[in-house]
Amino acid sequence: MPEEKKISMAVIRRLPRYFRYLHDLIKMDIKRISSRELSERMGITASQIRQDLNCFGGFGQQGYGYNVESLFNEISRILGVDNRFSCIIIGAGNMGTALANYENFRNRGFDIIAIFDVDPRKIGGTVNGIEIMSMDSLEDFVKEHKVDIAMLTVPNTHVTEVAEKVTSLGIKGIWNFSPHELRLGNGAIIENVHLSDSLMVLGYRLRSAGY
Amino acid sequence: MPEEKKISMAVIRRLPRYFRYLHDLIKMDIKRISSRELSERMGITASQIRQDLNCFGGFGQQGYGYNVESLFNEISRILGVDNRFSCIIIGAGNMGTALANYENFRNRGFDIIAIFDVDPRKIGGTVNGIEIMSMDSLEDFVKEHKVDIAMLTVPNTHVTEVAEKVTSLGIKGIWNFSPHELRLGNGAIIENVHLSDSLMVLGYRLRSAGY
Repeated sequence: MPEEKKISMAVIRRLPRYFRYLHDLIKMDIKRISSRELSERMGITASQIRQDLNCFGGFGQQGYGYNVESLFNEISRILGVDNRFSCIIIGAGNMGTALANYENFRNRGFDIIAIFDVDPRKIGGTVNGIEIMSMDSLEDFVKEHKVDIAMLTVPNTHVTEVAEKVTSLGIKGIWNFSPHELRLGNGAIIENVHLSDSLMVLGYRLRSAGY
Repeated sequence: MPEEKKISMAVIRRLPRYFRYLHDLIKMDIKRISSRELSERMGITASQIRQDLNCFGGFGQQGYGYNVESLFNEISRILGVDNRFSCIIIGAGNMGTALANYENFRNRGFDIIAIFDVDPRKIGGTVNGIEIMSMDSLEDFVKEHKVDIAMLTVPNTHVTEVAEKVTSLGIKGIWNFSPHELRLGNGAIIENVHLSDSLMVLGYRLRSAGY
């Protein structure tokens, strides 16, 4: 995707939000929206929105606003929502089970095809129709199935070891739920989910509002 | 906090990341860091970092970098990490249980004091030492205990109703885990957690890397 190389990661990280808001507008049958209206809905400044959307062509016309559908299609294309990714979950605890039950991932192109755990009481069971398999069978499974992403919901103390294992088997994407900031030097693409970041922002906003 | 009014939400949303990275640097006994080094660690451009940190005073000296501890203390102060917030979880399913077991929240000032559910089989049980109570007792509980934040891990179809209920009881902060973008017109402070946003960014990065 050479034409997209110039879009910064800061902008990319905001694209899923645009994607969601524009999707809502389409469902509400809204055809055009100004950067000011989008700004009010999204809580991003209008100038930031104009700057972001200019990065990939700019679908706004002065005085007419943005064509919602064109913008949605372009953001979908950049985000690659037509792509499908095969995912496995490592760790069939509460978080792993919650992810396996999450409705939205499949709609966004992410198919969870297996769950792995070390607990014999869990192995052989299913969550949302997805089989829980033994970690011992991970290597064979990855040889037989294309796996793009491993979602790691294992204890903090095991996350580096598990991440090294899955990447050594050729899995390129890691979605890490442990609070440990995972770093690997092997070219794997890692997204660390830090739930407490969002909670700290909530705390800040409560305090700012004087609550 | 009138002196902080000028800090934009975009900057505020990055503060927890600075907080985490600086905390790591302190644990590694690193005293000073340049915006360039911080940039490489965090994956934010050096100019963005200088701009962000200038918003609240600027602890950098040209050629000397930032004093890690001063910067950490200032960010902690702005984020209000010394504040404590009383939280309840609504929904003792997998996500609610995962949150109740999450290690990091207490360290960040968030105490989970009760869990509520409607399922009689769950009511009376505990998760990580926290009692699961009936939704019927929520009103009395909130009268007797100060509750700042309700963490909502209920099904999509119930989230608006539950959010209206908890805010009508005086709870000001909502941390919403349903994919539904929650909006209330009653002054409640809402943070919606969109797990698929982070997953979509991971998908984008994999595709960009040619995987």
